[in-house]
Amino acid sequence: MISNSGKPFLEHCMGQIAAFLGPARRVVFVTAANLYDEPAYYERARAALGAAPPAGCGAHVLHLRWDADPLAVLERAEALFVGGGNTYALLKRLQEGGLLDPIRTRVRTGLPYIGSSAGSNVAGPSVLTSNDWNVVGLTVFGALALVPFNINPHYLETDPAMAPGSETRDERIREYHVVHSSPVVGIEEGTVLRVEDGVAIVLGRGRVKAFARGREPRWYRAGERVEV
Amino acid sequence: MISNSGKPFLEHCMGQIAAFLGPARRVVFVTAANLYDEPAYYERARAALGAAPPAGCGAHVLHLRWDADPLAVLERAEALFVGGGNTYALLKRLQEGGLLDPIRTRVRTGLPYIGSSAGSNVAGPSVLTSNDWNVVGLTVFGALALVPFNINPHYLETDPAMAPGSETRDERIREYHVVHSSPVVGIEEGTVLRVEDGVAIVLGRGRVKAFARGREPRWYRAGERVEV
Repeated sequence: MISNSGKPFLEHCMGQIAAFLGPARRVVFVTAANLYDEPAYYERARAALGAAPPAGCGAHVLHLRWDADPLAVLERAEALFVGGGNTYALLKRLQEGGLLDPIRTRVRTGLPYIGSSAGSNVAGPSVLTSNDWNVVGLTVFGALALVPFNINPHYLETDPAMAPGSETRDERIREYHVVHSSPVVGIEEGTVLRVEDGVAIVLGRGRVKAFARGREPRWYRAGERVEV
Repeated sequence: MISNSGKPFLEHCMGQIAAFLGPARRVVFVTAANLYDEPAYYERARAALGAAPPAGCGAHVLHLRWDADPLAVLERAEALFVGGGNTYALLKRLQEGGLLDPIRTRVRTGLPYIGSSAGSNVAGPSVLTSNDWNVVGLTVFGALALVPFNINPHYLETDPAMAPGSETRDERIREYHVVHSSPVVGIEEGTVLRVEDGVAIVLGRGRVKAFARGREPRWYRAGERVEV
C-alpha cells in the first residue's frame, strides 16, 4: 500500500514495487479511481512500470477498465495495481464491475496487490477514512478487506492545509473510532506499507502512524513491523 | 451560514448573529453534530448566546436533542441555531429525528436559521462538499436545501504546505462538479454568508469563493453580494 504515487510517477517506490512483484511480469492496472481520463492515466502507468529497470519494472502492463470486460482482464493478471484518484468513485466502479469478490479471491490465493492512494484505501475493510469526498454518492462502503485495518493515505499529523477551526486528521480518526472499531493506519507521503503473510513492514522515506481504538497512536519507521 | 465558531466560541460573529436574530429571543440550539458530549456543547452555546450584549445576544437558549422530543422543542423556536461537529452525524440524526421537513418548513416561512460549520453544510442541497469524514456511514446525502448551493466551510485555497500528493480543496470541488451541477460556495474562517430573500451577502473578516460548474471560480469580500 503506497501513500501517494509522487512525481515522477511512482519513482519514489519503483524499487519496492519491483521487489514486491518478484517474477510477475503481467501487471493489470486499474484506472477506475480516475474521474477525468482513464486512458491517459493508463498510459502514464504503462510508461512508468513498463520501463526497463531501474527506472521501471520492465512490466507488461494491461489496462483494466471497470466497464469493459474487466473479469477477463483480471484473469490474465500476474499482479494487480490499483491506481489513485477518487476513492469513492473507485469503490463504486469496482462494485458496478462486479470486481470486489474476484479481486479478493485472487489476492487471497496469492496474486500480488499494489494500491496507491485510493488504491490503498480500498484494500482496507472500508473506505470511510479516505481524505476524498464522496462525490459519486456511494452508499456501500465495505471494501476489499485484504488487510484488517483502514488506511489513511497522505497522512499528515497536523495538516497545515486545514484552516485552524477545522478538525485535524487525528481528530477525524478519533471521530471514526467513536463509531467503528477497526484500526486505522496513516501512511505518510513517500511511504509504503508492505504486507505479506500477515506481516506489515514500513518502507520508504516517511513513517506510518497506527491508531487502535482506545489506545495511544503509535509511530513506525522504515524497517519496522506495524502491530495493530 | 458561519464557516467556523472560532475561539472564544462565536465571538467573531456575535454582532452579526445579533443583527440577524433581530427581535427573536428564544433560540433553539441543535447539538446533533457533536459525537462526544451534547450537553456540554449546549452549555457552551447557552453561555455564549445567552450573555448580555455585546458579548452575547441576551438570548434564551433551548437545547434541541434529536433523540428527545425534538419537534416539541422546534415548535417553540423563534430562531434555530445548528452547531458544528461531524456533518454526516448531524444529517443522519436530523433524518432519524424526522427533523428535515419540519425545519425546512419553518425556515421557509420565516424562522431565522443560523448554522456554523456542519450546521452551514446541512443548509445546502447535499452535504457531499463537507470536509468531514462520513464516520457514521450515512447513505442519504440530501440536506435542507435552504439555499441552492452547496457549502464548503473552513475553505482554504491551495496551500504550499499541504501534503504534495493530496488534492487541493479546489480539485475536490472540481471532482464534485464532474458528477453534480449545484454551485459550491467556500467560506473562509471568520466569515459569514448572510442569506435573506434570495440575496447572499458576505460578512466578516474573510472571503467567500463561489464555484459554478464549468466557470472560473470567483472571490467575494465583505459587503459583496454573491452571485451563483
